[in-house]
Amino acid sequence: MPRLRDVGELEALRRLIATRGPAPGVVLGPGDDAAVLAPAAGRELVVTTDAMVEGRHFLPGWLPPEGRGARLASANLSDLAAMAAEPRWALLSIGLRGEHELEALLDFQRGVVETLAAVGAAIVGGNLTGIEGPEWYDLTLIGEVARGAAWTRSGARAGDLLAVTGFPGRAASGLELVRRLGEGAREPQWAPLVAAWSAPRARIELARALAATGAVHAAIDLSDGLAGDLEHLCEASGVGAEVDASALSPDPLIERAAVALGRSADELRRGPSDDYELILAVDPARRAAVEEVARAIAVPLAFFGRMVAGAGVTWGGAPGRTAGFDHFGS
Amino acid sequence: MPRLRDVGELEALRRLIATRGPAPGVVLGPGDDAAVLAPAAGRELVVTTDAMVEGRHFLPGWLPPEGRGARLASANLSDLAAMAAEPRWALLSIGLRGEHELEALLDFQRGVVETLAAVGAAIVGGNLTGIEGPEWYDLTLIGEVARGAAWTRSGARAGDLLAVTGFPGRAASGLELVRRLGEGAREPQWAPLVAAWSAPRARIELARALAATGAVHAAIDLSDGLAGDLEHLCEASGVGAEVDASALSPDPLIERAAVALGRSADELRRGPSDDYELILAVDPARRAAVEEVARAIAVPLAFFGRMVAGAGVTWGGAPGRTAGFDHFGS
Repeated sequence: MPRLRDVGELEALRRLIATRGPAPGVVLGPGDDAAVLAPAAGRELVVTTDAMVEGRHFLPGWLPPEGRGARLASANLSDLAAMAAEPRWALLSIGLRGEHELEALLDFQRGVVETLAAVGAAIVGGNLTGIEGPEWYDLTLIGEVARGAAWTRSGARAGDLLAVTGFPGRAASGLELVRRLGEGAREPQWAPLVAAWSAPRARIELARALAATGAVHAAIDLSDGLAGDLEHLCEASGVGAEVDASALSPDPLIERAAVALGRSADELRRGPSDDYELILAVDPARRAAVEEVARAIAVPLAFFGRMVAGAGVTWGGAPGRTAGFDHFGS
Repeated sequence: MPRLRDVGELEALRRLIATRGPAPGVVLGPGDDAAVLAPAAGRELVVTTDAMVEGRHFLPGWLPPEGRGARLASANLSDLAAMAAEPRWALLSIGLRGEHELEALLDFQRGVVETLAAVGAAIVGGNLTGIEGPEWYDLTLIGEVARGAAWTRSGARAGDLLAVTGFPGRAASGLELVRRLGEGAREPQWAPLVAAWSAPRARIELARALAATGAVHAAIDLSDGLAGDLEHLCEASGVGAEVDASALSPDPLIERAAVALGRSADELRRGPSDDYELILAVDPARRAAVEEVARAIAVPLAFFGRMVAGAGVTWGGAPGRTAGFDHFGS
C-alpha cells in the first residue's frame, strides 16, 4: 500500500485529478493555475465552505475514508439545500500526513465525487498539503440559483407554518451511542441512528422540488439541532415560534437510545445534532402542495408549529432552549 | 488577551464577520446558510484554493498574523493573476487551537481583507474549526474574466517571447537565509529578500493591464520556481523554450545571498521559489506594448528567451533543470 510520502505530492494530485469524473460547466479544468467555469446566464451564485477534522468530526473505525468524503460533501450540500440552490462546482483542499495511504485518499475523494455527482455537482479544483498532526479536509461548494430565488433565514412571517424534514436528533443520538457504548453501538438496533450521524443525506432533491412551488418563505439546515436552529431562524426573520411538540410523532429509535443513554428523548431530539435536515417556514395556504412534494419524493416531513409575531420559541407552551455546540467551549 | 476558548466560536465568528468590510457584488452576506453573489453578466468564473499550514508555510516570529493573512491572499491572487482574472470573492476556512488569541485571528483576517480589498475582492463566507495540532488557513478565491479571455498555460506558440516579472528566486533566497542564519537574517541587507518570501505581491494590476493589450498568449505564476514553472508552461503548450540566461540581468541581492549561503546564485534564481511572479508568453509583434504597460505601472519585466518548436528548455544552450518542491518528498 503506497503512502503519500512514497508517491509524492505531484503523483498523488495526478491520481486525484484522474479519478474525479466529468465536471459539467467547466471551461478549463485542473492542471492550470485555476479552473474556469461557465455559470448559467442570469443566475446568482451561492457559496459555502465546511471542514472536517480528524478526531473531531470523524472517529476512525466508524467512518471509512469514502464515508468521510460523503459526509463532508453532504454537510456542504445541506447548506445549498437550505438556500434552494443547485450545486455545481466544488474545490477540495486537504491536509494529510505523509503516512496517509494513497488508496485511502482516493477512496475519500470518491465519496465526495459520488455524493456530488448524485446531485449534478463536481470537483473542479483543489489543494493537497503535507502536514503533521490531525488531518483535515476542507470543501468549498459553489451553486447557482435563479436571481432573487434563494431561500434565506430571514424570510419567515408570522402565520407561516413550521415544517421539518426527517428525524431530528438521530445524528446526535448515534454519535452519543458510539461515544458511550463503543463497539456496543454496532448492534443492529442502533444502525439507523449511527447512520444518521455517519451518513447523513442533504435534502437537495426536496429543496429543488419545493423551490418550484414558491411555498417556502424561509429555511435553515439542522447543524445546531432543532431548538438551536429554530431560534436562529426566528432571530433572522424577526418573529417568534410556537412549537406543538406533540405534532412531532414520537421517534421510537430515539426513545430507545434515550433509555440506553440515560438521557431525555426530548433533549436528544431538540438538542445539538448534525442532522442536515431542513426547517422550513411554509406559506399556510400551500401546506398541501408542500406535503404532496415531500410524499412524491418520499421525504418524511412533519408540520410542528407556526411562526408568530414577537420573539422567542415556545415548546407546547413551555420554553425549550437547549444550548448549542461550541467548538472552543470548555 | 482573550483566547478563542474564552470567547467561544460564535463570538469569534461575530467579530470576524463584523470586521470584514464591504463586499461588492454580494446579494446576501454572512449569517445565512451560504452567501449569495451576483456575478457580472456574460463572464466566466475563475476559481482557486490554497492553504497555509503552521510550521510549513510560516515560521512564527517571521510572519506576524496580519502578514500571514496577506501572504495567503497573495498566493491565491497570484493564481488569478496568471489567468488574467478579476478577483471578486473569497471564502476563508480556518482551523485554530483554543489558545489562539482572538486579536491575532482578527489581525490575520485583516491581512487577508486588506490584500483582497486592494484589488477589489472581499471575503464573503468562511468557517472556523477548533483543532489540536498545527493550525491551518485555507482560502478559496473566485474571480471573473470575459468569456474565453482567461490566460492559460497551454496557449504559448513557437516564436512567442518569454518574459518574467520581478526578481525570481528572491523568495527562496529569503527563506533559506531565515532558515540558515536565524536572527542573522534580520540584518537590513537581507530585508528585500526576506520580504520577497514573507510579503510577496501578486501581479493582479499588471495582468489586468496586459489582458487589455491581447499581447499575452500564455501565463503561469511562479510557485515552483523559474525553471520548474517554465517547464510546466512548455509542457502544457506543447512547445520548447530557449532561455537566454544572460538577458536576466544579475540580481546583486541574490548574488550576495548565494555567497553567504554557499550556494550557486543561478540555482537560487532558477530553483524552487514561491515568488508569485508571472512568466508570460508574449506575441513577438507586441513586445513594445507589453514593455510600455509594465513601465507604466512600475513592474520590473525581463524578456529572457523565446518559445521554440519541440520540447524541453535550454538555458543559454545548456539544460537548466532544477528539481521542484514536493510536500511529501523525503
